[in-house]
Amino acid sequence: MTQDPDCIFCKIASGAIPAENVFEDDACLAFLDIGPLAEGHTLLISKDHYETVADMPPDAAAALLKNLPALVRAIKSATGCDGVNVLQNNGRAASQVVPHVHVHIIPRKVGDLFHYNWPAGTYAKGRMAQVAKEIRKNLP
Amino acid sequence: MTQDPDCIFCKIASGAIPAENVFEDDACLAFLDIGPLAEGHTLLISKDHYETVADMPPDAAAALLKNLPALVRAIKSATGCDGVNVLQNNGRAASQVVPHVHVHIIPRKVGDLFHYNWPAGTYAKGRMAQVAKEIRKNLP
Repeated sequence: MTQDPDCIFCKIASGAIPAENVFEDDACLAFLDIGPLAEGHTLLISKDHYETVADMPPDAAAALLKNLPALVRAIKSATGCDGVNVLQNNGRAASQVVPHVHVHIIPRKVGDLFHYNWPAGTYAKGRMAQVAKEIRKNLP
Repeated sequence: MTQDPDCIFCKIASGAIPAENVFEDDACLAFLDIGPLAEGHTLLISKDHYETVADMPPDAAAALLKNLPALVRAIKSATGCDGVNVLQNNGRAASQVVPHVHVHIIPRKVGDLFHYNWPAGTYAKGRMAQVAKEIRKNLP
């Protein structure tokens, strides 16, 4: 288990700081967010310390995220919500506050107050293919 | 391969509708969103048809989401973004538009126009433990 002694989520994972846990296995822990967007707002974290999802080996990402279906179902059943957002922020520019990979599981109801704007744009002719090519070049 | 003949993402997965693909393996496909929040905004989908992540077997979720680290790294390298949001919406109340499980990978820059409000609340004394107990009861 790789831990950062100064990381609050590592301390929650080890039990040094208590949390309201809902699920745990060898690789991960899920617990209620203490500043919830709605009742049942849950954080799923890896026990190993990775700052962002980009730092995780694929197997560690799989071990963490295979738990999403059961957690989303359980949170839906427990809260009676209408929908669920799964949100994972990487880097301060993406609103990541705690630098330990974590996944927000956010129960939603029609008409609730959480929302995001969605200023969708378009690509100029030919630009989309250029961007895709650049991404492909950076994949193994 | 389980497909829904009326689903636009199933048609993209099968190649019946073209897309600007950036990655593909046996289980999943990643392609550029045609209405991007930023250049490089990518959608990662399972080739099998599941409406939401709650409908996926754990292994299918793992097979899909183990690709996030490499995709986030490649999108970051290709676009030079400062951060990345990973967002997966389940249900209309959570802003899901296409009813085929998909993960938004959204490049972020400091000062860009995508944002979400975050009206965080608190639990009344004792309520958090009740909610956690209810979620645990609904987990296998």
